[in-house]
Amino acid sequence: MSELNFITEVDVMFYDTDIGGVIHNLAYLRMIEENRTKLAIKIGMDLQSMQTNGVFPVLLNTNANYIKPGTLGDTLVIIGKVSKIERVKFKCNFEVYRKSDNTLLVNCEQFLAVVKMPEGKPQRLPKELLNLKK
Amino acid sequence: MSELNFITEVDVMFYDTDIGGVIHNLAYLRMIEENRTKLAIKIGMDLQSMQTNGVFPVLLNTNANYIKPGTLGDTLVIIGKVSKIERVKFKCNFEVYRKSDNTLLVNCEQFLAVVKMPEGKPQRLPKELLNLKK
Amino acid sequence: MSELNFITEVDVMFYDTDIGGVIHNLAYLRMIEENRTKLAIKIGMDLQSMQTNGVFPVLLNTNANYIKPGTLGDTLVIIGKVSKIERVKFKCNFEVYRKSDNTLLVNCEQFLAVVKMPEGKPQRLPKELLNLKK
Amino acid sequence: MSELNFITEVDVMFYDTDIGGVIHNLAYLRMIEENRTKLAIKIGMDLQSMQTNGVFPVLLNTNANYIKPGTLGDTLVIIGKVSKIERVKFKCNFEVYRKSDNTLLVNCEQFLAVVKMPEGKPQRLPKELLNLKK
Repeated sequence: MSELNFITEVDVMFYDTDIGGVIHNLAYLRMIEENRTKLAIKIGMDLQSMQTNGVFPVLLNTNANYIKPGTLGDTLVIIGKVSKIERVKFKCNFEVYRKSDNTLLVNCEQFLAVVKMPEGKPQRLPKELLNLKK
Repeated sequence: MSELNFITEVDVMFYDTDIGGVIHNLAYLRMIEENRTKLAIKIGMDLQSMQTNGVFPVLLNTNANYIKPGTLGDTLVIIGKVSKIERVKFKCNFEVYRKSDNTLLVNCEQFLAVVKMPEGKPQRLPKELLNLKK
Repeated sequence: MSELNFITEVDVMFYDTDIGGVIHNLAYLRMIEENRTKLAIKIGMDLQSMQTNGVFPVLLNTNANYIKPGTLGDTLVIIGKVSKIERVKFKCNFEVYRKSDNTLLVNCEQFLAVVKMPEGKPQRLPKELLNLKK
Repeated sequence: MSELNFITEVDVMFYDTDIGGVIHNLAYLRMIEENRTKLAIKIGMDLQSMQTNGVFPVLLNTNANYIKPGTLGDTLVIIGKVSKIERVKFKCNFEVYRKSDNTLLVNCEQFLAVVKMPEGKPQRLPKELLNLKK
């Protein structure tokens, strides 16, 4: 499943930092969500038609390790990949690096499902995603 | 219209601050939104039935002055009031004070309308709000 | 360690929700951070003196399960506790409930350390915290 | 001062939207801050050396008009420019367009100063910025 990955770059902004002088833990998860959403689009999930149908990808679990701090002025590289596809859920892994010296700052594993809202009913994964499994 | 006001208190958290060592400008507007939403509920706007009907209060304009910086450890007092009611829009004013010494940190004026979503069609203000005008 | 817990209540606001009609996953983690910070203050960590000394609690790991969705109009109850204290790190557990029907929406485990910034050097935990271990 | 502008593009994410089905008002201001910060770097403000010196650009006033709603799936184009330079403050103007149909969604005027933190003392603007005035 080597094609199931996506790379994004983010320049750290003031709103990403806190008074400790480093990037706030929530900011990394927002950056990871951007990567994940663009990855979802790449593998064939069409956000606009999902929205029309009230079907949305939802996060089941997030498990993030904060390894080294980044700060204002850094450019971050986020590498996301789909690492496992099951019938009604899939797993993604993310790594956040500082671009200047390739230091790993954060890694994160997330499980997602595709759910009909507002009932919250899990749906079979889109065929584009299931096909990638093969 | 003396009853048309609402007071909230917020303890400043890490995520409210940035690397400058002070509260980030966006955090004040989030705190003001909390005050405004609770004020809206107090004057009779029922968020759950509005939601069911797809009718939402929307911000038309925000005009905020950042006067003095607050920081981690501060408790802030936000005073919101409805200052003007017209047929399809209303104006609110907000002041954000540091509780310990009563310093004014931010003031803000906002215009709002009530809109049917997703069409974005403006609605007549709820009668609870129009009645308060009298 | 029965006293090592803290309860906060949050009314869900527009900015906590997304187009899926439910609370966004990042909003829960912001609410959990508020609970955690107030818990830290309760057990004797003085944010203002830590700040003066450039010493800050930092998150090492967060592991959150999103169980049921909450939405606008809900009041959430967050229960946080310190569940384990080691020499240079400690563990907290959080549960987020919907108040109206006591449904568990999210649970979360987090590891934290106390670190000298900006060097990122781990410090011995404050004695107030180590004493609670006994 | 025709060179004093900067264009950024943003794909709307779930965390930018709210339960009303459109982009939340705070999300536009975060996007505008990204544009403004990159504009500041372009005109010669070096964030890393400012940080080392404890000197930061701070927002004095923000005045935003929310004209049309954007939503998930939209790509937004933000055009920022420095429109006025005085001795200790400068003014920026921003416009946020939906890329697909060139609709103006938000416009915003902001005044900024350069301030020594944590004292909050205003500084003379950097010479790179003052030179642009000529």
